[in-house]
Amino acid sequence: MAKNKVRVLPLGGVGEVGRNMWVVEYDDEIVILDCGVMFPEADMLGVDLVLPDITYLREKTSKIKGILLTHGHEDHIGAVPHLISDLGFPPIFGTRLAHGLLSNKLKEHRLLDKVTQVVINDTDTFQVGSFTVEPFHIAHSIPDAVGFALTTPAGMVIYLTDWKLDHTPVDGKPTNIQKLSDLAQRKPLVLITDCVRVESKGYTPSESTIGEAFDNIFAVAPGRIIVATFASNISRVQQVIDSAEAYGRKVMLAGRSMENNSRIALEMGFLRAEQGTIIRPGELGAYPDDQIAVVCTGSQGEPMAALNRMANRDYNHLKIKEGDTVVVSATPIPGNEVSVSRVINNLFRLGADVIYGGQANVHVSGHAAQEELKLVLALLQPEFVIPFHGDYRHMVLYRKLAMSISGKFTEENVIIPDPGSIMEFSHGSGKVVGKAPVGYIYVDGTTVGDVGNVVVRDRQMLAKDGMLIVVVGIDMSSGELVAGPDVVSRGFVYMRQSRDLVEATKDAVRAALTVRNGAMPGSIDGAFVSRKIKDVVSEFLYRETKRRPMVLPVVMEV
Amino acid sequence: MAKNKVRVLPLGGVGEVGRNMWVVEYDDEIVILDCGVMFPEADMLGVDLVLPDITYLREKTSKIKGILLTHGHEDHIGAVPHLISDLGFPPIFGTRLAHGLLSNKLKEHRLLDKVTQVVINDTDTFQVGSFTVEPFHIAHSIPDAVGFALTTPAGMVIYLTDWKLDHTPVDGKPTNIQKLSDLAQRKPLVLITDCVRVESKGYTPSESTIGEAFDNIFAVAPGRIIVATFASNISRVQQVIDSAEAYGRKVMLAGRSMENNSRIALEMGFLRAEQGTIIRPGELGAYPDDQIAVVCTGSQGEPMAALNRMANRDYNHLKIKEGDTVVVSATPIPGNEVSVSRVINNLFRLGADVIYGGQANVHVSGHAAQEELKLVLALLQPEFVIPFHGDYRHMVLYRKLAMSISGKFTEENVIIPDPGSIMEFSHGSGKVVGKAPVGYIYVDGTTVGDVGNVVVRDRQMLAKDGMLIVVVGIDMSSGELVAGPDVVSRGFVYMRQSRDLVEATKDAVRAALTVRNGAMPGSIDGAFVSRKIKDVVSEFLYRETKRRPMVLPVVMEV
Repeated sequence: MAKNKVRVLPLGGVGEVGRNMWVVEYDDEIVILDCGVMFPEADMLGVDLVLPDITYLREKTSKIKGILLTHGHEDHIGAVPHLISDLGFPPIFGTRLAHGLLSNKLKEHRLLDKVTQVVINDTDTFQVGSFTVEPFHIAHSIPDAVGFALTTPAGMVIYLTDWKLDHTPVDGKPTNIQKLSDLAQRKPLVLITDCVRVESKGYTPSESTIGEAFDNIFAVAPGRIIVATFASNISRVQQVIDSAEAYGRKVMLAGRSMENNSRIALEMGFLRAEQGTIIRPGELGAYPDDQIAVVCTGSQGEPMAALNRMANRDYNHLKIKEGDTVVVSATPIPGNEVSVSRVINNLFRLGADVIYGGQANVHVSGHAAQEELKLVLALLQPEFVIPFHGDYRHMVLYRKLAMSISGKFTEENVIIPDPGSIMEFSHGSGKVVGKAPVGYIYVDGTTVGDVGNVVVRDRQMLAKDGMLIVVVGIDMSSGELVAGPDVVSRGFVYMRQSRDLVEATKDAVRAALTVRNGAMPGSIDGAFVSRKIKDVVSEFLYRETKRRPMVLPVVMEV
Repeated sequence: MAKNKVRVLPLGGVGEVGRNMWVVEYDDEIVILDCGVMFPEADMLGVDLVLPDITYLREKTSKIKGILLTHGHEDHIGAVPHLISDLGFPPIFGTRLAHGLLSNKLKEHRLLDKVTQVVINDTDTFQVGSFTVEPFHIAHSIPDAVGFALTTPAGMVIYLTDWKLDHTPVDGKPTNIQKLSDLAQRKPLVLITDCVRVESKGYTPSESTIGEAFDNIFAVAPGRIIVATFASNISRVQQVIDSAEAYGRKVMLAGRSMENNSRIALEMGFLRAEQGTIIRPGELGAYPDDQIAVVCTGSQGEPMAALNRMANRDYNHLKIKEGDTVVVSATPIPGNEVSVSRVINNLFRLGADVIYGGQANVHVSGHAAQEELKLVLALLQPEFVIPFHGDYRHMVLYRKLAMSISGKFTEENVIIPDPGSIMEFSHGSGKVVGKAPVGYIYVDGTTVGDVGNVVVRDRQMLAKDGMLIVVVGIDMSSGELVAGPDVVSRGFVYMRQSRDLVEATKDAVRAALTVRNGAMPGSIDGAFVSRKIKDVVSEFLYRETKRRPMVLPVVMEV
């Protein structure tokens, strides 16, 4: 890399460029920003998680001085257990809560004693290699979140993700605007900023506005109140606890991640409840319905999460019934609209009153809207800006927004990265200079990386038209068909009702192999027979049904 | 069925009860209301269309006196070619445009000369069997739409679907509120009404408000303007033509359904354009970019529709470039959010300016919001109401809305139907009395009904973890393994990188068959061997990988 320049690059991930992991490199030192997972897109069939592609770092692990975590959300810490070994176990710097949540994961992966976790304070400067790192508090939908200013010899890089301004957050700790103003005095070189809510005008409302909406619901709900939200949204859980205490209700936590996260946050003091407010599932029966509140997972309609199980009457301690009030305190993440809608329909079907959607004011975003994005940019006046954590359109709209506030921001210095874009900066100069590898790494079941694009593409093909297996036994010396053809199919057509089609398929195979028999004996080999069957059957089935099942010939050489 | 009662029932379909087809029955006569298709839900893998289940009608075709079509949308006319033969070719009554669009479909299915199409006027009463049918004009997102009042000896049934009030529609024909008031005087027995937008407060804005938004865009766009909308939204196409003519642009129609529908609407006079305004794709080159407008399909992000092909530079006559302005004049249907978002990202990537989303005011719904629903109900004062064309939650919210306007409406007389609910009515009495069969009928490729729930479930399983075929040749007389085991897999793991797993799977099969060999020869049969392999391999693979591929044993008896 170029001398006296600082290099930054977003590692490959799904959809939103750089959402999960960034690299900052100067000379022979590297700092990693965040290390999160993404959830697979709808067409990544059967995949559980997607990890950032760390190919760029594989030959450079000795240079990695540390990983800085901004906050404890899955998409920022979730890949640590999967990747930390390949990264050579660099020390991990993060706030108390981020480490609390990470420790829980490391424990599950039996990695707790192998990883160096350094707890940082959001006001104290520290060194990572020769980088001077200044964290600063930011408001988001989880407490104890920070941004980072990294000072390198080439200039200062500010990393600001998952933030909003929120002057009245639930935990009383707003975004540290004085620190931003202090950084602004020192002429930042690069600002890397989240832009995912650039389509929304004005300001994102304060998290504390939700408290009012909750109070209004708690004041009148006749029976139990069940609030579904993200397990990581500690502030939202706090507000349920506050309203419950104000209106004389006990609170039960439901769903594994909700229980885990809340337990950690309670132990560390990020979640506060009076003695006796939190009850265990088994204690529900001891209280009348109008003294019960539940906070649970499942706000995205996930089939196995607590809310959906309650809606399907498959949750042991609580089954939805008439008189229940369910609050869906979240917005569907794109792609989840249909499953959320299904759960809501089921809840109504069981007689619950359901409060959901934009007009109910029971959810606010944890990300900055247009006026906040503009304000921070106008304040910091960085020489270069890299918008990220958004789709391509969000980055384009962010650039337009930046250009609208000052002639200083142009198509040249507001840089829209692709996944893996390698960018280099020094005062007066900044641009994309190359591209790092950016494949997906899938986690499916218990293993990482043995499911790749080919496997996922096969699943897509199987999902569309199913498959058909043709089994033949061939005497390789004579080329004679000695067993079969047999046909087995799944996901294609009802076999029982399609005997004619099956018989015709067999005839097509027989005919094809007879032609082959006319050829020289030397050309008889299993691979050739396979190919022939595949071509003939695929074409035959498409002609007959206009479908393209995957055709798998099985040739037994006997 | 009960004497002197009118029976109504929604036939089975996907998601929204009765959206596609209703039956009205009195004595030994049946009238069918609409005959549409639904598009499959995300988990109906590989299915192209879903038809209503007409099992209820199979033994009663001789009673069917006719089919009444409300308007020319796919979800109201699209099943006619697939079902008309099974329904015994009853005459079809509909407006000119509905028939124009239907004729096009019948022609494609070579059914045009077999079907009796009766064109009705939206002000003229007519008889179907002994039902007196009064159509009345309604405003929707396609011209020439009607509702129906059916007078039977038991009372009047009003069928009002896909409507809004819109006093200033683009074609100048608002919902016939005088006729509704006239019907109200005659004490309707049952109102069957669309309620899909009951979550939206106030009034749905008039279709003509879009014209202003278009004019503002046409006034300033520097290059070509490409408007994507539903092919059936003739009024929207009209507004593009109007704005184009006002600002000196030619209009090209792109996408097969857009071309077909617009051609029919132009021929019939429902779409008006000055001579020379509409140009063919080949003529695009003859005009500068700022004199070109395009109306195209693909507003739902459909991969093969014109907009996405333009965005992938796969559309012959037009490739998106810098300077183009793309207007997405539609809202994503639930489930399509992600694909729409992808297309928008691609358009931005190619340098286009894209105008989309709620804040841009380039789309309004064709369905009534809360105040319209309330007004029509308050005006008609039917004895019974059946809300439909919505999810379960919409119907529950509609009932609440109805109960909020008058004590006359109660849990008893606002009836929420399930798919196939058989309801019977006479003055003073109305309730669900039974349930008709409500399976799905899938259309996949060229055939109807040979893909069913089993096939779709297999596809879901294949999509999740793929499959693994185990092939063995067994000498049935000795029970000896004479060929294999061979393993073929798709969509499960990378076979090349999983040799150990493959070998271990083969060992497991061998071990299982050895055990079997210890058993009595009498127990050796192919089905038993298959079952055994399936169980052993499934269990082995789950233990090793925590995945459950579909295991398919192929046993060759040699």
